[in-house]
Amino acid sequence: MGRSRENTYLFSQLYGIMPQKAAPDGRTIDQEVFPMSHTVELLSVGTELLLGNIANTDAQMLSQGLSELGLNVFWHTVVGDNPQRARDAVAIAKQRADIIITTGGLGPTCDDLTKNVLAEAFGKKLIFDEGSAERIRSYFQRTGRTMTDNNLQQAMLPEGCSVLANDWGTAPGCAFEAEGVHVIMLPGPPSECRPMFRYRARPYLLSLSEGIIASHTLKLFGIGESAMEAQLREQMNAMHNPTLAPYAKEGECELRVTAKAATDEEAQALLQPTVAQVKALFGDKVYGVDVPSLEHVVVQALKDRGLTIGTAESCTGGLMAKRLTDIPGASAAFKGGIVSYTDEIKEGVLRVPGHLLAQYGAVSAPVAQAMAEGARQVLGCDIALSSTGVAGPDKDSWGNEVGTMFVAIATPEGAHVRALALGARPMRERLRTQTASHAFDLARRYLSGLRWGD
Amino acid sequence: MGRSRENTYLFSQLYGIMPQKAAPDGRTIDQEVFPMSHTVELLSVGTELLLGNIANTDAQMLSQGLSELGLNVFWHTVVGDNPQRARDAVAIAKQRADIIITTGGLGPTCDDLTKNVLAEAFGKKLIFDEGSAERIRSYFQRTGRTMTDNNLQQAMLPEGCSVLANDWGTAPGCAFEAEGVHVIMLPGPPSECRPMFRYRARPYLLSLSEGIIASHTLKLFGIGESAMEAQLREQMNAMHNPTLAPYAKEGECELRVTAKAATDEEAQALLQPTVAQVKALFGDKVYGVDVPSLEHVVVQALKDRGLTIGTAESCTGGLMAKRLTDIPGASAAFKGGIVSYTDEIKEGVLRVPGHLLAQYGAVSAPVAQAMAEGARQVLGCDIALSSTGVAGPDKDSWGNEVGTMFVAIATPEGAHVRALALGARPMRERLRTQTASHAFDLARRYLSGLRWGD
Repeated sequence: MGRSRENTYLFSQLYGIMPQKAAPDGRTIDQEVFPMSHTVELLSVGTELLLGNIANTDAQMLSQGLSELGLNVFWHTVVGDNPQRARDAVAIAKQRADIIITTGGLGPTCDDLTKNVLAEAFGKKLIFDEGSAERIRSYFQRTGRTMTDNNLQQAMLPEGCSVLANDWGTAPGCAFEAEGVHVIMLPGPPSECRPMFRYRARPYLLSLSEGIIASHTLKLFGIGESAMEAQLREQMNAMHNPTLAPYAKEGECELRVTAKAATDEEAQALLQPTVAQVKALFGDKVYGVDVPSLEHVVVQALKDRGLTIGTAESCTGGLMAKRLTDIPGASAAFKGGIVSYTDEIKEGVLRVPGHLLAQYGAVSAPVAQAMAEGARQVLGCDIALSSTGVAGPDKDSWGNEVGTMFVAIATPEGAHVRALALGARPMRERLRTQTASHAFDLARRYLSGLRWGD
Repeated sequence: MGRSRENTYLFSQLYGIMPQKAAPDGRTIDQEVFPMSHTVELLSVGTELLLGNIANTDAQMLSQGLSELGLNVFWHTVVGDNPQRARDAVAIAKQRADIIITTGGLGPTCDDLTKNVLAEAFGKKLIFDEGSAERIRSYFQRTGRTMTDNNLQQAMLPEGCSVLANDWGTAPGCAFEAEGVHVIMLPGPPSECRPMFRYRARPYLLSLSEGIIASHTLKLFGIGESAMEAQLREQMNAMHNPTLAPYAKEGECELRVTAKAATDEEAQALLQPTVAQVKALFGDKVYGVDVPSLEHVVVQALKDRGLTIGTAESCTGGLMAKRLTDIPGASAAFKGGIVSYTDEIKEGVLRVPGHLLAQYGAVSAPVAQAMAEGARQVLGCDIALSSTGVAGPDKDSWGNEVGTMFVAIATPEGAHVRALALGARPMRERLRTQTASHAFDLARRYLSGLRWGD
């Protein structure tokens, strides 16, 4: 088992993400944390999943969202657009879960398979819902497409259900309770499933609970998974409400603090001390709370201060510029970048002195600094970031190992270089991502008046 | 149901990817295509999947690979690191599938859950496999890490199994047949699961079959899903061996031609006429057979001809450079790039004449061309690509709609501009990806001596 699996497992036991008590029937429940003790099965219907045309990202998104609600997702099941196998899967789910959430199989191309099967399994008729029909008609009008008659079949819904109106597509979702089981049906396309969960299913599930759930996510850079784990274990071993869920990805770490309370005010009151405690514990390694990414923090800080940025990239080959311009509205802060994959361009365009290249080689601290300083001048920006290093697969001609990287920042107050030895084990893509992140880390530290933290 | 789901469904019916006959027991088989009529259940074991920390990409990868082998994947099941629920899931799988492939749950951190449960379910003992133990020891030596004793537990394998040696991690996989069911266990981390399927499980599965399976993948650019579908329907409605499986992603299309035969030679003989037929049908929209991507084709063609390339990017913001430098060894052909997010940099660094910017605006054909020509000079490369456009979320200050894009190529023989109206519906990320791909399309057409195909 890989590293991240192992940690997930450890963390889950330590910090109460996972159920903590075994009930007599062998199920586990986490009543100490949340009063809800429901167990959830996700049932995805779609031949495209079984053919491997797409990954089941709906299941991942729903699992994350349900875990945050304190619900125990114990099973994912996928079946194709096949009535008999769908019926069998529902029969199994009915026996072992008390919340069944389905995705897919709601549209006319699959004969509304999921709705038919679930209604049948719980002895319900499908009846015509005029409100849903009206929404479907207006959806087609709005998007200027022609509606075929079979689209209206989507307005047939199980009797007595709560309609989950779909503002992001045509097929409405629905929810009902029968035989002690809650059933929620959501459309399959991720662009519909995601908002339908957030704005329709989540409120429905919260209404089953007695209180509300609120969370904050702290983002950290410059600390490894295991170091974070070691520090957390000492401090927060006994936490129940709020709970703390760590995630690691692409060389960054996240900590999600989640509290359950009667009101949002009470939940926030529970959350704030823990957020403050974690911030104090990890200091300036925390680069933000509830922020999307390191580069978002950089762009926002630049905009707030009316400053501009530029990039000079060798080993990251455009990735820094790409990540900055992924952000809508980045043009207010990002002026441009130069990707210099040859010494000639480093010297000719970025004005890196030839003697530095000759003396130290392109992968060196002096060249990283000269690249950043050159970019700052050539691009006319307030601060500039640079990268140079060996992304692999082989050593460079100077004998530098794969994973040897330098990132630099040039500012009105001078330059700073960070040397990295990322090792040869990460893949090329990951080496480049981490290198770009280190450059962004320099920028956010400069913009926040922090020490470099190398 | 969304577009791609719908098309998958149609294709699956049309082109024999999916089972075509119903057997008396309600299962469907595809004997006409392949003699194998096995049904497969994928069972993934891992709490991290149920928490939504990761998507089940193993299941997607395996489903693709198994579909190519003509095997019917009918169920995906995910359970956590919980012995009782794993036992229950195996009991269900045993009843309905005749091939069970598990992923995850093989390492010491989960007490080798999967191996224990599967061995128990089929009444097998675990016995110590010295060959696997030796591999585990040497893996730790090779990677310079310390081996704890519980790692050797991974060498306990079901009696009589075929050991699937893991050259990509520590936990060996295994395969056995019992009670008419084939069981294959693979490690969970995708970096291990993928090669273990390809080099270990796939040959094992092929040995169950009487012949071999071979396939070729044609990559197309510049044709939409529905247009491709319409043309294929007429030509290839009755195909059985080889079969044709279309895929669409990120504005590109793929066609996988798969044949089953007694020998590779016979399979290739079956494949070649269809590959030729599809190439003839779609002409120069086919940019390669069995190639990884458009940018790979461009870099390879440049290397073959000893030419160099550079980029000048506005709306794609570094993505073109990033995609080129994703390719190991791209430095032999890629010299560098300039990301010009302001008119100032277009004029100052890329030497775009100021009067063009004033007269036509930055998002225009003349500026796209001047950017490519400027990059070619400034970067000193043989050919240069450029992009300028509105990636959104809003119109630009000249009133150009989101999705208005221009890409250009500058060559020793002159320049060419392609104007694109990609519409405002795709997301920012997708607009940028498609725009970069169009620029690469210009490059590969130039390098292959094809017409521009706008």
